[in-house]
Amino acid sequence: MARVTPDQIAALHDVLRAKRPLVQNITNYVAMTISANVLLALGASPAMVHSIEEVEEFGRFIDGLVINIGTLQPAWIASMQLAASTASAAGKPWVLDPVACGATTLRTRAATDLLALRPTIVRGNAGEILALAGASGAASRGVDSLAGSDAAIDAGRALARSSGAVVAITGETDYVTDGNDVFAISGGHALMPLSTAIGCALTATVAAFATVAPPLEATVAALSAYASAGSLAGERCPNGPGHFPAELCDALHGLDAAVIAARSRVELHRP
Amino acid sequence: MARVTPDQIAALHDVLRAKRPLVQNITNYVAMTISANVLLALGASPAMVHSIEEVEEFGRFIDGLVINIGTLQPAWIASMQLAASTASAAGKPWVLDPVACGATTLRTRAATDLLALRPTIVRGNAGEILALAGASGAASRGVDSLAGSDAAIDAGRALARSSGAVVAITGETDYVTDGNDVFAISGGHALMPLSTAIGCALTATVAAFATVAPPLEATVAALSAYASAGSLAGERCPNGPGHFPAELCDALHGLDAAVIAARSRVELHRP
Amino acid sequence: MARVTPDQIAALHDVLRAKRPLVQNITNYVAMTISANVLLALGASPAMVHSIEEVEEFGRFIDGLVINIGTLQPAWIASMQLAASTASAAGKPWVLDPVACGATTLRTRAATDLLALRPTIVRGNAGEILALAGASGAASRGVDSLAGSDAAIDAGRALARSSGAVVAITGETDYVTDGNDVFAISGGHALMPLSTAIGCALTATVAAFATVAPPLEATVAALSAYASAGSLAGERCPNGPGHFPAELCDALHGLDAAVIAARSRVELHRP
Repeated sequence: MARVTPDQIAALHDVLRAKRPLVQNITNYVAMTISANVLLALGASPAMVHSIEEVEEFGRFIDGLVINIGTLQPAWIASMQLAASTASAAGKPWVLDPVACGATTLRTRAATDLLALRPTIVRGNAGEILALAGASGAASRGVDSLAGSDAAIDAGRALARSSGAVVAITGETDYVTDGNDVFAISGGHALMPLSTAIGCALTATVAAFATVAPPLEATVAALSAYASAGSLAGERCPNGPGHFPAELCDALHGLDAAVIAARSRVELHRP
Repeated sequence: MARVTPDQIAALHDVLRAKRPLVQNITNYVAMTISANVLLALGASPAMVHSIEEVEEFGRFIDGLVINIGTLQPAWIASMQLAASTASAAGKPWVLDPVACGATTLRTRAATDLLALRPTIVRGNAGEILALAGASGAASRGVDSLAGSDAAIDAGRALARSSGAVVAITGETDYVTDGNDVFAISGGHALMPLSTAIGCALTATVAAFATVAPPLEATVAALSAYASAGSLAGERCPNGPGHFPAELCDALHGLDAAVIAARSRVELHRP
Repeated sequence: MARVTPDQIAALHDVLRAKRPLVQNITNYVAMTISANVLLALGASPAMVHSIEEVEEFGRFIDGLVINIGTLQPAWIASMQLAASTASAAGKPWVLDPVACGATTLRTRAATDLLALRPTIVRGNAGEILALAGASGAASRGVDSLAGSDAAIDAGRALARSSGAVVAITGETDYVTDGNDVFAISGGHALMPLSTAIGCALTATVAAFATVAPPLEATVAALSAYASAGSLAGERCPNGPGHFPAELCDALHGLDAAVIAARSRVELHRP
């Protein structure tokens, strides 16, 4: 894959809207509402189902899956693993969001164990990807990353190679790699990190796109779409981050090739 | 009950505002915030209390109760049952929202067991009502219904007769039945299903109205009020669903007979 | 401490913005998103981490802590206690929000047990403070207080003396006491109680200020800042409470000494 153009991304989004994929989310309490609203705005259908008694049965209906370890508690980990295995066995894409991996033993272990179940895509910030890759003893400061996203590119590439997953490292510039190529996606807005769980809802967006395209293309497309919508949404929030989630949903709802072309850029990253 | 006029609905709403009923919600994680905000905007007082150690004691204070099985987990089912029994024993209205009933064994069983505790009102979409009624093996696709709400009218009527509950089947047109009469309520807006948990918050609205009127009248009034507010709110969201929850709360907050008369319609349904 | 001026409050807020303190929240499901967004808007960094397996380890990273017992369940109480003890042992400030203390035995006991772990600050409404102080068998009506905040001043002062915590009793007028002095803070807006969990997010604001100032000064500053932002936000919501959370975040994001001076007042309370 050498290029992903705005027209291709918009066309994928139209396919997504027509398909209306059912995306299951086992995600954290803070992210549930915004993840559901972002999926609805994109044109997907969200489902929040997490009990171990039903994730396998429910897995038959889904098109894609998000596993996000924010607000983690041990009882959920077994559900996450069963849902992930069910999706993998059925050949359905699933995306791992290793929130605050590296901050505590519980998180690092949960993320590592989930990684072994072969996620289609991993989406995290630089600190999380560094920690998950074992590329460093990088200090992870809660859910915030101390390192810029470019610092984690090598770790991300190594992680992609060893795990077989496409890896997305998001930050001011996002990087996506399948272990070989690295794409850089720019766009977005300074207000994005000032509204909670916007990164988690991005993971849900990646999962939705992964139901209509191969993992690398889907991830690049999702990140570009989100960066474009975020840029537009941020511009519509002159007074601060308060209305950002609502504006992001509106921007995703109305997203088209022109907005994508004007507000984000995808490039092959050459170190 | 032959008619429910806009003036009667607005008068009921004024009674609700004056009473400020305490409505307990054992609901799903996604719906908690919007349910609380919708109840506050309506003039009710929400409480989210779900632990089995306190639902019986807390039940003494409440005026009405919502039991919603979204994001279901087995540990909550016993709490739901105890809270429902406590409300029933005290003659307080409670409303069952059988989210995604039919999608998994866990959900169908939980909804069926709760139905046996005699909810005052059941509120669901067509697929959920069909599944709960056992009227069909209707495919339920997650929380979305594949069937239009009118397809479930017969099932809803049968369910009302067998359970003793008023049954509301909501969709583009809503239907409410006590097993004999069927009322059709129209109004609303195309953005309503594009914002998460708006149906769950409607269930909370039904519970609030049920604290000030008999079940059939309360349900018709609640659905009409909500459809009116939804219509106004949708009109105030020209760019998409992002601001819909906020606009819905504002519309409910300022709701009056004129808005109800202009934006929703209640009719006796004659097949 | 005889006075806290708008300039001092704004200066503290600037220190907070520069420090970007990591504030851990073990809070209720309804309050999580708005608490995180309020902390981000203020300039702090929120983390929602509650599992007993990780609260001690995570406690090394934090600057302050919120313990809020809304949507309480017994499994969380041990986590709350461990997180509180960890913060106390490390000399880090933590704030107790005893939601609906007095309404059920579970809540009263949980709040009392947490009080024994020596919170830096307690923030509640009059009913909660009265119940926690044991000053009365005050009827607590769910999460709403039946008593005005001034009725609880004596109880709050007694509670501050016996517990060693600064006590904030919030309502139409807020009162803050260290057991000796009592400060009264006015401002705010009538829409504040019509939006869910705004009081809980105030507790998070108090915790954020407590990372940059001694408890009494921090609490007065936080309440004044919040009352000012609430006043401005309410004014920007002409149609009702729907957009209040978003406007509150924007107002906190842009808060300065002029807004504080214009929209809230801090006075020594002389009975």
